Amino acid sequence: MKYFIFSILLLHLNLISAQQNLIKYVKPIIGSEKMGHTYPGATVPFGAVQLSPETDTISYELNGKYNGDVYKYCAGYKYEDKTIVGFSHTHLSGTGHSDLGDFLVMPTQGKLQLNPGTASDTKSGYRSAFSHSNEISEAGYYKVKLDDHAIIAEMTATTRVGMHQYTFPKSDESHIILDLMAGIYNYDEKNVWTYIRVVNDSLITGYRQTNGWARTRTVYFAMSFSKPFANYGQKNYDTKQSYRGFWRKFDESKNFPEIAGKKIRMYFDFKTEEAEKIKIKFALSSVSQENALENMQSEIKDWNFEKVKTDAQKLWNDELNKIKIEASEDNKKNFYTAMYHTFINPTAYTDVNGQYKGLDQDTHTANGFTNYSTFSLWDTYRALHPFFNIIQPSRNNDMIKSMMAHYKQSALHMLPIWSHYSNDNWCMSGYHSVSVIADAIIKGVYNGDPNEALDACVATAKHRNYEGIGTYMDLGFIPDEKSGTSVSNTLEYAYDDWCIAQLAKKLDRQEIYEEFIKRSSNWKNNFNPTTGFMQPKLANGTFKSNFDAMTTHGQGFIEGNSWNYSFFVPHNPTELIAKMGGKSAFSDRLDTLFSMHLPDSFFAETEDITREGIIGGYVHGNEPAHHVAYFYNWTNEPWKTQYQVRKIMKMQYKPTPNGLGGNDDCGQMSAWYIFSSLGFYPVAPGSTEYAIGSPLVNNAVLTLENGKMFTIEVLNQKDKNVYVQKIVLNGKPLPTLFINHNDITAGGKLTFYMGSKPKK
Amino acid sequence: MKYFIFSILLLHLNLISAQQNLIKYVKPIIGSEKMGHTYPGATVPFGAVQLSPETDTISYELNGKYNGDVYKYCAGYKYEDKTIVGFSHTHLSGTGHSDLGDFLVMPTQGKLQLNPGTASDTKSGYRSAFSHSNEISEAGYYKVKLDDHAIIAEMTATTRVGMHQYTFPKSDESHIILDLMAGIYNYDEKNVWTYIRVVNDSLITGYRQTNGWARTRTVYFAMSFSKPFANYGQKNYDTKQSYRGFWRKFDESKNFPEIAGKKIRMYFDFKTEEAEKIKIKFALSSVSQENALENMQSEIKDWNFEKVKTDAQKLWNDELNKIKIEASEDNKKNFYTAMYHTFINPTAYTDVNGQYKGLDQDTHTANGFTNYSTFSLWDTYRALHPFFNIIQPSRNNDMIKSMMAHYKQSALHMLPIWSHYSNDNWCMSGYHSVSVIADAIIKGVYNGDPNEALDACVATAKHRNYEGIGTYMDLGFIPDEKSGTSVSNTLEYAYDDWCIAQLAKKLDRQEIYEEFIKRSSNWKNNFNPTTGFMQPKLANGTFKSNFDAMTTHGQGFIEGNSWNYSFFVPHNPTELIAKMGGKSAFSDRLDTLFSMHLPDSFFAETEDITREGIIGGYVHGNEPAHHVAYFYNWTNEPWKTQYQVRKIMKMQYKPTPNGLGGNDDCGQMSAWYIFSSLGFYPVAPGSTEYAIGSPLVNNAVLTLENGKMFTIEVLNQKDKNVYVQKIVLNGKPLPTLFINHNDITAGGKLTFYMGSKPKK
Repeated sequence: MKYFIFSILLLHLNLISAQQNLIKYVKPIIGSEKMGHTYPGATVPFGAVQLSPETDTISYELNGKYNGDVYKYCAGYKYEDKTIVGFSHTHLSGTGHSDLGDFLVMPTQGKLQLNPGTASDTKSGYRSAFSHSNEISEAGYYKVKLDDHAIIAEMTATTRVGMHQYTFPKSDESHIILDLMAGIYNYDEKNVWTYIRVVNDSLITGYRQTNGWARTRTVYFAMSFSKPFANYGQKNYDTKQSYRGFWRKFDESKNFPEIAGKKIRMYFDFKTEEAEKIKIKFALSSVSQENALENMQSEIKDWNFEKVKTDAQKLWNDELNKIKIEASEDNKKNFYTAMYHTFINPTAYTDVNGQYKGLDQDTHTANGFTNYSTFSLWDTYRALHPFFNIIQPSRNNDMIKSMMAHYKQSALHMLPIWSHYSNDNWCMSGYHSVSVIADAIIKGVYNGDPNEALDACVATAKHRNYEGIGTYMDLGFIPDEKSGTSVSNTLEYAYDDWCIAQLAKKLDRQEIYEEFIKRSSNWKNNFNPTTGFMQPKLANGTFKSNFDAMTTHGQGFIEGNSWNYSFFVPHNPTELIAKMGGKSAFSDRLDTLFSMHLPDSFFAETEDITREGIIGGYVHGNEPAHHVAYFYNWTNEPWKTQYQVRKIMKMQYKPTPNGLGGNDDCGQMSAWYIFSSLGFYPVAPGSTEYAIGSPLVNNAVLTLENGKMFTIEVLNQKDKNVYVQKIVLNGKPLPTLFINHNDITAGGKLTFYMGSKPKK
Repeated sequence: MKYFIFSILLLHLNLISAQQNLIKYVKPIIGSEKMGHTYPGATVPFGAVQLSPETDTISYELNGKYNGDVYKYCAGYKYEDKTIVGFSHTHLSGTGHSDLGDFLVMPTQGKLQLNPGTASDTKSGYRSAFSHSNEISEAGYYKVKLDDHAIIAEMTATTRVGMHQYTFPKSDESHIILDLMAGIYNYDEKNVWTYIRVVNDSLITGYRQTNGWARTRTVYFAMSFSKPFANYGQKNYDTKQSYRGFWRKFDESKNFPEIAGKKIRMYFDFKTEEAEKIKIKFALSSVSQENALENMQSEIKDWNFEKVKTDAQKLWNDELNKIKIEASEDNKKNFYTAMYHTFINPTAYTDVNGQYKGLDQDTHTANGFTNYSTFSLWDTYRALHPFFNIIQPSRNNDMIKSMMAHYKQSALHMLPIWSHYSNDNWCMSGYHSVSVIADAIIKGVYNGDPNEALDACVATAKHRNYEGIGTYMDLGFIPDEKSGTSVSNTLEYAYDDWCIAQLAKKLDRQEIYEEFIKRSSNWKNNFNPTTGFMQPKLANGTFKSNFDAMTTHGQGFIEGNSWNYSFFVPHNPTELIAKMGGKSAFSDRLDTLFSMHLPDSFFAETEDITREGIIGGYVHGNEPAHHVAYFYNWTNEPWKTQYQVRKIMKMQYKPTPNGLGGNDDCGQMSAWYIFSSLGFYPVAPGSTEYAIGSPLVNNAVLTLENGKMFTIEVLNQKDKNVYVQKIVLNGKPLPTLFINHNDITAGGKLTFYMGSKPKK
């Protein structure tokens, strides 16, 4: 007994001690195989640069053909591949649609080749074979040996600058390729324009403009070499170049410093000694070359690669130390890699001088906040932003300010749907900015004007000509004739409307509250009491015939069939349960979801997930049912939540390259995991309530920005002890299976007593 | 006699009186037919906006075909045409290559048509027939009736804003088209990108990016309507648009405010009453939409079209009043239209807040000067900039500051060759910035650092990999094997080098002086004493065989054959005369040039001029021989200069649409006329000396910026009295046929006594 107490004390000391080395648990390679769509390269928390290898890119042309496998290469890198094309500076983490891949750099030696070549014959181009045994992927650091060129490539980053370090063999023909044709997207006209200026023999600047998932996007850069290049040159692969023939006064192919065109590849020649290192600093800006250069000069002052790496890893370790856990090695890997993945997006989109390019394509200055981009809100409103409200409130505050800036710059007068580098790509359904905003304001995280924010939410929710909102407002649902995703839209709008109502209530804006609390019950209009399912309705008010609850497409849904989506009333489970026949029937129905057998046709049409991303009929690899396992808490069988969430954590998250069962979706999958590991989950952001699940950690200490600590202690934790027997909050038994946000931010201790049998 | 004296007094009083209405003599339509390549629309002196009708544009697609007649439509408007396509905001004046034509606006009524239609069937599109009888073209004002739509179109401008006024008939279907596909250039991929933002129901902003003669060019705009549009919409004609299908959440064709793409046409719908006027303010910026809006708000505060027009015409009148002449009505029209054309280019390229886009594509601020673009220097160094040194010294000072800014922003570290909207199009030969700079510094016009300017000249002249400079420096000439224009290049470099030498001498930079005075005699290396002609030389030092002095192409020249170009030693006629066999032989040779008969093959290959642009073998419509008529002054027959220049003025300049015998070339042709009309000409800019010709005016008073007045009095002026009998400067007979720049800037009076017989 004495020993036990001593251990607890030791543990506690350990958890609150200065800092642990936690980055050793981060395995960026997790999710890089199959469906996770994560990337293994170097970035810092919320960094604007994601410097990562690409094993294939979409936008390059090879023998007149484009690689059409856009979906596979959303993150540029597939663990399954055997060759690396190069290292580019921007990547989306875990998305199901592709873009970015800007400024592909590749070191080579021997005969200069400007085309990437094929994976089956690396000698046909500049690409190289590589082996995972020669690859190191850490938070803030990536290293690989490029077999074809006998070059060691290393990379690290600051917020706005990627740093490369290439160790060359002795060669009179060492090269660094800068491929400005390369990019990630499935459209051969993605490259709109490229401009490059060779300032001197070791600095170039320029910009690249693309028409990809982000429609109108410009990225400026500054690229500095640690060693002057001996020669440089370029080739323009555009077959339809402007007529300038008569006035070509220069040989523009070699050592010509003012380059512009649509499809440019550049090279830089060096003579290298054995093991000579050539380093590159590559800075980005959304505003100007000048700003890119300022970003570079501010963030990396010299050529000390090790220092930049150490600093990057310290930034990561600082972030990771905000939650110290005790858990198995594998669970620590899963947990800290999940934290790593939640701290990648959104990404900083402000230069060091505060400037950024707004949605209106003009330059703005972010006064008193960091502007962010890459808001995959349909995914991330669920758990990522709620997680930030606990562990990154300052950043989430800035993210809401970024959304408000987007709103003010929007000619549509709308909050972002999917904020994407000075664009909205309007991807997926709902207007979930309002959930993020309401949740943050209700939880006291936003320090801007809450009434202005509410007005922005209302304006967005009343934008009649956006995706059926007009008919939704008129009829209370979207007729199937008007939209292929009428049901999921109506359900998501209803939830978002509830968020607006909650915010209006808090701000004492009674009229808005009443309007939106009424709208929030619109989910009922798609509920068919006869079948017990959410179903598409026709304009005449009748349900569409030939309903199939197993099928997504053509049935009014997106990324989830009616079996999953019928549970999408996160803001009113009580009434949903009543509609579905009461607690017992509801619980049985959840059981069926988690145990049903799916036909093969289901897998054929389901996007973004592997077969392993599904448990019974429950699709964890997509987001619409992420809250569903927690719904047992509203029934008389809450232990089934405990059972299911532990099962999901075990089945869907593994510390291996193929460890994610679906797209990580800019951190949403990972945020689900973190919440669930800690034992609770925000079923309805906009509410301050978290539903209790079954913690996976043995213990956890959250260090909050307000200086408070919140400890989660799990007693009798074992693999088979998934059932919660008792919960004590700050010494008092928890009366329900819910805790409040204030319980966490006030600091304190939540103790779980676990057992192998349900506590009925 | 008393009456005569009284008349003279009256005349003098008239000439120096407060202000005359001189814009009535300006006929912008002069040169708009055939080869002049001028435009008839509205602009202010050196304005950034040139709002002018287009009778056809190059870059629009019609039934899958492009109008290939790029050369014809350099200025967008051809007097010969019967239809107008629309009114765009940027035009080059008098060039022989095409670009610009940004933001074509066209008012229509009736059925909406978004394609321009054909000239032969105006009903097939939005274009309209028009008649010159319903057309008014004035300095700063243009008006035309669009017959197909029964709409009166009027336009005027400020420096950075074009103002339209359309008088509609009563119609429920009135439209204003904004065609963002239209543009002037011969390349169907000119449009790189377009972005438009509908800010509200009467304001849109955006930008247009092109790859034309200027390779990398972006023009931002703000467009404000005096009346809110009822509806608006767009069509994207790009057949290869980015994949965005699934995420099209809006009907983007109508009332959708965030538009982007390569080939966009927009429309704005109105309901109009009979004679209702809809006005548009259309502002440009090279920097941002925000700046365009600021330009608009600063320059036109309300909707008073008449006031803007009055202000524009006052600006013109102020400029024109700097030279008051007495002459025949026709000669006044020619003279003031020439002044008008000389004050169009270069164009202001700075926003009201001082910002502009530099050659490096970054935003810069012009501190203490107006930044200018559109420097057609191969043309304009000859007479336009020397004219500015007399009559626009402040602006020429700013122009040189603009050139220096260009130099500092140039990755090539070169002064401009042809400065073109943040680009250098490197058109034509030589590096004539150095002539403009040397001339201005030597004449005391430049208030920047002259040594820095000299360094920029030297760096440019030593840029070895530009257009044969390397071999020119090594061999003293450019081998024919290296360049198709080896002889004209060598000749022009030699003259430019002499300018550098003159500047170095003034600045006491002895080493530079010696180096460049030596280089300035390189013209001798292409002079073949056997033939007496400038001829292409091979790398082995021998002259190329099959020489043909009548032919330009393939003979080492550009825009001038050896007959014309062999006289291109403006800086050293004395030695050229010696080489060519002495004064008498030289004089005979000039006679031959002016009287020879040309074969038809000559006209087939000669660009930029009409058959009328040629006198004998002397090509006035192109520039290389512009100084040649003045060369008789160095012989014993100077009266032949007097005869020839009067003949050239009479034959080459007429107050009619087809009145210019060649491209006006951004004012060079006009500047030649102004100098010659006043009786003198700068044969070798860089020297302070002007060669005397034969004035066409009766009298002229130049009001200089330093407050001094310089009067040219011509006694016994008649059409046939082309010969100068005597010249008196400030009461003293002029000892030579040359006057000095200082004679002019000091103020005073130059009296010509004319007669019908040569004064031998």
